[in-house]
Amino acid sequence: MATSMVKLMLFSALILLSLQAVVSVTPLHFQHPLDPLTKQEISLVQTIVQNKYPSSSNRLSFHYIGLDEPEKDAILKWESIKPTVITVPRKALAIVIINSQTHEILIDLKARRIVSDNIHSGNGFPTLSVDEQVVAIELPLKYGPFIESVNKRGLNLSEVVCSTFTMGWFGETKDRRTVRVECFMKESSPNIWVRPISGLAMVVDLELMKIVQYHDGGIIPVPTADNTEYRFSHQNPPFGPRQHSLATHQPQGPGFQINGHSISWANLKFHIGFDPRAGIVISLASIYDLEKHKSRRVLYKGYISELFVPYQDPTDDFYYKTFFDAGEFGFGLSTVSLVPNRDCPSNAQFLDTYVHAADGTPLLIKNAICVFEQYGSIMWRHTETGIPMNRSKKRDGSQLSGKNCCYRGQLRYIIDWEFKTSGSIKPSIALSGILEIKGVDIKHKSEIKSDQHGILVSANSIGVYHDHFYIYHLDLDIDGVANSFEKTSLKTVRVTDGSSKRKSYWTTEVETAKTENDAKIILGLSPGELSVVNPNKKTSVGNDVGYRLIPAIPAHPLLTDDDYPQIRGAFTNFNVWVTPYNRTEKWAGGLYVDHSHGDDTLAVWTKKNRDINNKDIVLWHVVGIHHVPAQEDFPIMPLLSTAFELSPTNFFERNPVLKTLSPPDVQWPGCPK
Amino acid sequence: MATSMVKLMLFSALILLSLQAVVSVTPLHFQHPLDPLTKQEISLVQTIVQNKYPSSSNRLSFHYIGLDEPEKDAILKWESIKPTVITVPRKALAIVIINSQTHEILIDLKARRIVSDNIHSGNGFPTLSVDEQVVAIELPLKYGPFIESVNKRGLNLSEVVCSTFTMGWFGETKDRRTVRVECFMKESSPNIWVRPISGLAMVVDLELMKIVQYHDGGIIPVPTADNTEYRFSHQNPPFGPRQHSLATHQPQGPGFQINGHSISWANLKFHIGFDPRAGIVISLASIYDLEKHKSRRVLYKGYISELFVPYQDPTDDFYYKTFFDAGEFGFGLSTVSLVPNRDCPSNAQFLDTYVHAADGTPLLIKNAICVFEQYGSIMWRHTETGIPMNRSKKRDGSQLSGKNCCYRGQLRYIIDWEFKTSGSIKPSIALSGILEIKGVDIKHKSEIKSDQHGILVSANSIGVYHDHFYIYHLDLDIDGVANSFEKTSLKTVRVTDGSSKRKSYWTTEVETAKTENDAKIILGLSPGELSVVNPNKKTSVGNDVGYRLIPAIPAHPLLTDDDYPQIRGAFTNFNVWVTPYNRTEKWAGGLYVDHSHGDDTLAVWTKKNRDINNKDIVLWHVVGIHHVPAQEDFPIMPLLSTAFELSPTNFFERNPVLKTLSPPDVQWPGCPK
Repeated sequence: MATSMVKLMLFSALILLSLQAVVSVTPLHFQHPLDPLTKQEISLVQTIVQNKYPSSSNRLSFHYIGLDEPEKDAILKWESIKPTVITVPRKALAIVIINSQTHEILIDLKARRIVSDNIHSGNGFPTLSVDEQVVAIELPLKYGPFIESVNKRGLNLSEVVCSTFTMGWFGETKDRRTVRVECFMKESSPNIWVRPISGLAMVVDLELMKIVQYHDGGIIPVPTADNTEYRFSHQNPPFGPRQHSLATHQPQGPGFQINGHSISWANLKFHIGFDPRAGIVISLASIYDLEKHKSRRVLYKGYISELFVPYQDPTDDFYYKTFFDAGEFGFGLSTVSLVPNRDCPSNAQFLDTYVHAADGTPLLIKNAICVFEQYGSIMWRHTETGIPMNRSKKRDGSQLSGKNCCYRGQLRYIIDWEFKTSGSIKPSIALSGILEIKGVDIKHKSEIKSDQHGILVSANSIGVYHDHFYIYHLDLDIDGVANSFEKTSLKTVRVTDGSSKRKSYWTTEVETAKTENDAKIILGLSPGELSVVNPNKKTSVGNDVGYRLIPAIPAHPLLTDDDYPQIRGAFTNFNVWVTPYNRTEKWAGGLYVDHSHGDDTLAVWTKKNRDINNKDIVLWHVVGIHHVPAQEDFPIMPLLSTAFELSPTNFFERNPVLKTLSPPDVQWPGCPK
Repeated sequence: MATSMVKLMLFSALILLSLQAVVSVTPLHFQHPLDPLTKQEISLVQTIVQNKYPSSSNRLSFHYIGLDEPEKDAILKWESIKPTVITVPRKALAIVIINSQTHEILIDLKARRIVSDNIHSGNGFPTLSVDEQVVAIELPLKYGPFIESVNKRGLNLSEVVCSTFTMGWFGETKDRRTVRVECFMKESSPNIWVRPISGLAMVVDLELMKIVQYHDGGIIPVPTADNTEYRFSHQNPPFGPRQHSLATHQPQGPGFQINGHSISWANLKFHIGFDPRAGIVISLASIYDLEKHKSRRVLYKGYISELFVPYQDPTDDFYYKTFFDAGEFGFGLSTVSLVPNRDCPSNAQFLDTYVHAADGTPLLIKNAICVFEQYGSIMWRHTETGIPMNRSKKRDGSQLSGKNCCYRGQLRYIIDWEFKTSGSIKPSIALSGILEIKGVDIKHKSEIKSDQHGILVSANSIGVYHDHFYIYHLDLDIDGVANSFEKTSLKTVRVTDGSSKRKSYWTTEVETAKTENDAKIILGLSPGELSVVNPNKKTSVGNDVGYRLIPAIPAHPLLTDDDYPQIRGAFTNFNVWVTPYNRTEKWAGGLYVDHSHGDDTLAVWTKKNRDINNKDIVLWHVVGIHHVPAQEDFPIMPLLSTAFELSPTNFFERNPVLKTLSPPDVQWPGCPK
């Protein structure tokens, strides 16, 4: 029974962990070459780097410790053989600031040695560490001019809480690793974010770890704490009616199996990795084709490569707020533990992971990822009526979801990858959290005389306009590595020769993108479909096997092309891009995105206009939301989500769920049907 | 306990039904003035009409028997008082063809008399009856020329099954009530739809009930039955792995209460009606506002008004296939019973309804609608990290879904209305079923020399290009009847005066639509938001209370404006329309859509360009899908769905789920957490 297998595996994992805690039997405990670094491996990286740069004589901070992904052909070879021992090299990349210089240190984990140690000399800085931010936000509380500003406003310094904000780049030629620090009032409400002390501009140099710029632009009232409370324990009656409990019951246990980080479920298998920067990474997703009697690969790798969140207020307090949440703060580093029964349904199973502290110490994140099946409606349904036959046939199905949550400043991102037995893959991202609020001396909309760059969501509180753009890296390998990108346009044809009673109809024109420029798509301009096909594999009737991108409603950037934030976030210029596979082109906004100048983005890489026809290609998809805030977003936002789908299109000979066995109906005690 | 209440109600309903079957205690058993006609009321309509037009001397067929909806002000008055007896008039509308003339007969059900009896003299015909179609499809089997065509092709007549197809209108000045009949081979496979006998054109006059046109265009091979089987019992191994069972468990029972057709759940209440033409109708949706201590109405009425499904093949076999599935065939009339545990999850509850046969007899549809709660992910989530506080707060929620399935020809539509405690309403429609297949003498794509107007989905089988357009009638009443339609545009502003380090930002421009022409919107042309607001009700900070339309990715018609099908389906010319409330403007394609000339559509009504500012207004929303078939759609399509959302926007003072009580966690026997 699968149930006992899953339980057995979980127990095994627990036993191994407890053994490790005591005797640390096997320092390199991983099962798949794409598994994230283990606790022992992170410690090993820490030790090796500290051995070369002893902290007695060096100032070290670790900004990234992650798997240096093996070459794709090595992985594919391993995957096709699955030897009992892992023959693929196992390396880690550490990005470490050592005495204010950024080192890229590549470490061979098996040989326990440094392979290379290069100093980054270009623009931009690594992902911030949580630790340095914790130090930076304490600085204002001991800084004379800030204390004076607080006193001048009649505020209580002991109730002030500060936070760090990345500064972006606005054409400066000289860069230092700096952040803005803004402060908020906590007092009676935990919701500091909606209670900014506006009008102060304060810059901290992270290398000097001191305040290097300070300006008090004048007193603006701190919005009141009234109605900003979100903790249920602090709400006053009347309360909403209590909902009834609802849980998912699986008498045979979960239908999926987790083996380390490898998941198999129904006709699907894939690997869930984890990266300190990207968070959840899906690899090697394949579907078992019953007719071809083999597993066919679809997705070599998929993850969220970058986010761009430009606020739309050009004034001194806000102009710089143009965040790149993955590269500046790290989706993986910002991951919080999922709460069973709350963040994931009661039938979910969880995976833990490790990230690193700034000193290189491994940090456990319990329940970083959850995996669960959910009711997936019917897959197809057919009933005959009106003709002399009597049949009612349908097949119902469930879906598998892999979920991960990242927290960044006020916002929480919920990353979800949903798999269906039909072969569809549906990535989605949802965000919740607290709006960026600008304090204003306005209590009612009628007092607004000029553009406030947002919506008055509460007295003295402007919810500032902003965008959320997410770019997915989707290295599709449709039934093999060599793929092409196909654009199908829908075109109106006018009937002018009287050959039909119709005056018009539409038909399709298919174009294969030859180079990167052919594949830069702004969605929504004209009707059509976009697919990645394998031109070397055809169905029995001669169609190229493929997968189609079913996009969400698209959003396009509204900043001008020459504006600095847009240069840095130029990967949002198109909704779809296709590049030839290149192991180093991972981060659409650049590897060093803090203070970046936009010289290492997807928009720059694709200027080479490389050949993408019948090559190993990567699809990049930008999804976005323009956010005009509303009072419902205050004091804490409801979930705002967007999703798209990758769907098999002539990939199978026919509907692949025809031969799916429906599960037996559930009967449970005390709940007669 | 709510559990026992729900069970009590269900038992009550069962008892009443069984009593009625025996003694028929109360002929007018309904509880709400918007309840669909009861079995007794349909019988009463039948009796009253037959009394006036005895079938001994008249030929009668009932094409519609439905509730003649009371005036809105009467309903609202009733709703505000909720007297124990229903004081609102109760009328039925019957559309009856009597001796080839279409009668609109309005009946007062309390007085048991005919209020009016008018003869329709305009273009178009009523919805087809199932009964007449059943007769029509038998005609070819006894028709000499057809039998000859079958023999000529070497086909077995006893394996031929036919079906009816509405004919549309292509500029003809003289109309008769006719349908095309097409025939298919059943033989070993039940999937007749993919095995057309192509090349035959056959027209049946429904009044004469005989074949009035016949043309054999020559022999085209009938696609093979191989691989067309969809019944699981007829599939051959190997099978896909059996999925594990998955059911939803609610130890306190469902969180909603059904009282007749009125549903209350958490902070929401609404009425589920049912119409023979529209199917499911949602009315009087209101949300209880904890802060204002009252229920606030949002949606007076919502339903799918029409569908338009134009196929894109101009040749003789296909040009006429431009279906209006709701008006021509009746969504309600085509409703099939939902299967517990398959079409709806195990925790669903079901509502039955009655429709009518062509002779006026009431027909029970068991389980026509299901209502269920489902896991709705978290509503919001917030955790503080990186600042010296330690909090993790979230509120999780479930969703309520009302679902209904309609079957039309090869297609099955699944209509869903999802409600969230945040106040969001998410209507969706999904379709499954069998493609319209054109038989061709082509077995491989390499043989295709000219436009086949579709995709070769199997040997000899072209899946023809087509669109699905759905138009929703959404009579929003945002906190009152008088509303306005607001267009918020997002505009780029260039910074040219050096006042900011930014070169650009975006801001919003709000325009209130004055007349119908201002509110005709093609989505996707420019970024922005669309809302219905109540300009007479403001939040405490002065925002108009409102609801926002969050659309799906839009589809626009590709037929030319002057093409006959597009004239009939001109309601698809825009994705959004707004009209002043008018009780008679219910069907966007016209009341008589079979053979319609497009003179009674939403596009015609709005030519009056009526005032819609601060009026009782109706929002119409067109969602659509262009369908380029794929082999996965063969022999039966996976679910293809589209959804949009109506979301509160400054409707509440703040996030309305802050005070929602999370349900207790579930523990059940044998499944320790």
